[in-house]
Amino acid sequence: MSGATKGAASKDAVLDEAVLIAGRIGLSGLTIGMLATATGMSKSGLFAHFGSKETLQLQVLARSRDEFSDRVVRPALRAPRGETRVRALFEHWLAVSRDPGAPCLFPSAGMEYDDQPGVVRDQVVRDHTDFAEAVQQIFRTGVSEGEFRADADDVQFQHDLMGVMLGFFHSHRLLGEGDAEARARTAFEALIAGARAI
Amino acid sequence: MSGATKGAASKDAVLDEAVLIAGRIGLSGLTIGMLATATGMSKSGLFAHFGSKETLQLQVLARSRDEFSDRVVRPALRAPRGETRVRALFEHWLAVSRDPGAPCLFPSAGMEYDDQPGVVRDQVVRDHTDFAEAVQQIFRTGVSEGEFRADADDVQFQHDLMGVMLGFFHSHRLLGEGDAEARARTAFEALIAGARAI
Repeated sequence: MSGATKGAASKDAVLDEAVLIAGRIGLSGLTIGMLATATGMSKSGLFAHFGSKETLQLQVLARSRDEFSDRVVRPALRAPRGETRVRALFEHWLAVSRDPGAPCLFPSAGMEYDDQPGVVRDQVVRDHTDFAEAVQQIFRTGVSEGEFRADADDVQFQHDLMGVMLGFFHSHRLLGEGDAEARARTAFEALIAGARAI
Repeated sequence: MSGATKGAASKDAVLDEAVLIAGRIGLSGLTIGMLATATGMSKSGLFAHFGSKETLQLQVLARSRDEFSDRVVRPALRAPRGETRVRALFEHWLAVSRDPGAPCLFPSAGMEYDDQPGVVRDQVVRDHTDFAEAVQQIFRTGVSEGEFRADADDVQFQHDLMGVMLGFFHSHRLLGEGDAEARARTAFEALIAGARAI
């Protein structure tokens, strides 16, 4: 392994650790000092890697966004257009949300940063907007394939689905309710039924 | 003012400040040192008031729960039983969620503590469970008044409404979307339409 490759690999491992910590205590609580303690690396070494707490937080966010995209959006886009693709999006999103090893950074960063202006919040908003538009676009394939009503509202569907998933997170991860997934599925089926062409 | 009353008044003011800080940066980030800086009181005085960081967090949670109950649940219970009461619940909940001065501790504490076991998390779960049961009970007044279907599912309605409100929070407070409230109202009307007796 060249020195550069080794440096990249260890930075990757450190970022993985940082994503886990941020998933547990929140992104805004993540500091270079805390990461030094968790990884056994020196603070000066980590500063050399990341430069500042904000850069660290932005990189953790980028890593988390890439993982979400790889596990949810991209597999959905490989499914056939239309209702099948919307269902694939929902199933992959549920699977990631159920995974106890997957950090729940995506929804929690939204709650965390709503009252904290700055570059990290700006990036959280951009990431959520990109994802919202991807969901709307996936929904519209159902309209253009004629499976959903021509006047079905893609933005409303995306808002409603976001609500279903935030509700699932709340019920499953915080309250530990055994029927959280069944409740989310019932809500999802009602949204699909409301969108279907008659 | 007696010494005891004065002590209670100043503790109240300190708690108000603590609720605001926790609403901004998250409950788990709230410390006695930080509160000392914000209020200009001595750390030792605050320790005498609260004893520990955890007790402070529990008292902030209790204050926030009481305020939510006073502004949302109790006014709804004063409305006539049935759909009118469910609508009152939704309107008061929206009003609190829109209020930029009201700390959004209730939903954010849920996200924050889902991966952090301890007495504070236990209390967050109890508070959310109590509120969920209050929502179910309010919904059931619509069933017993014959306005909602006899087989309408009160637990599903409560899950769905929680999703609508978490979605509203996300869209309004994080993304600052101008149509957040209209989207939430559309989703609420769909839930009510689905529950109505035919």
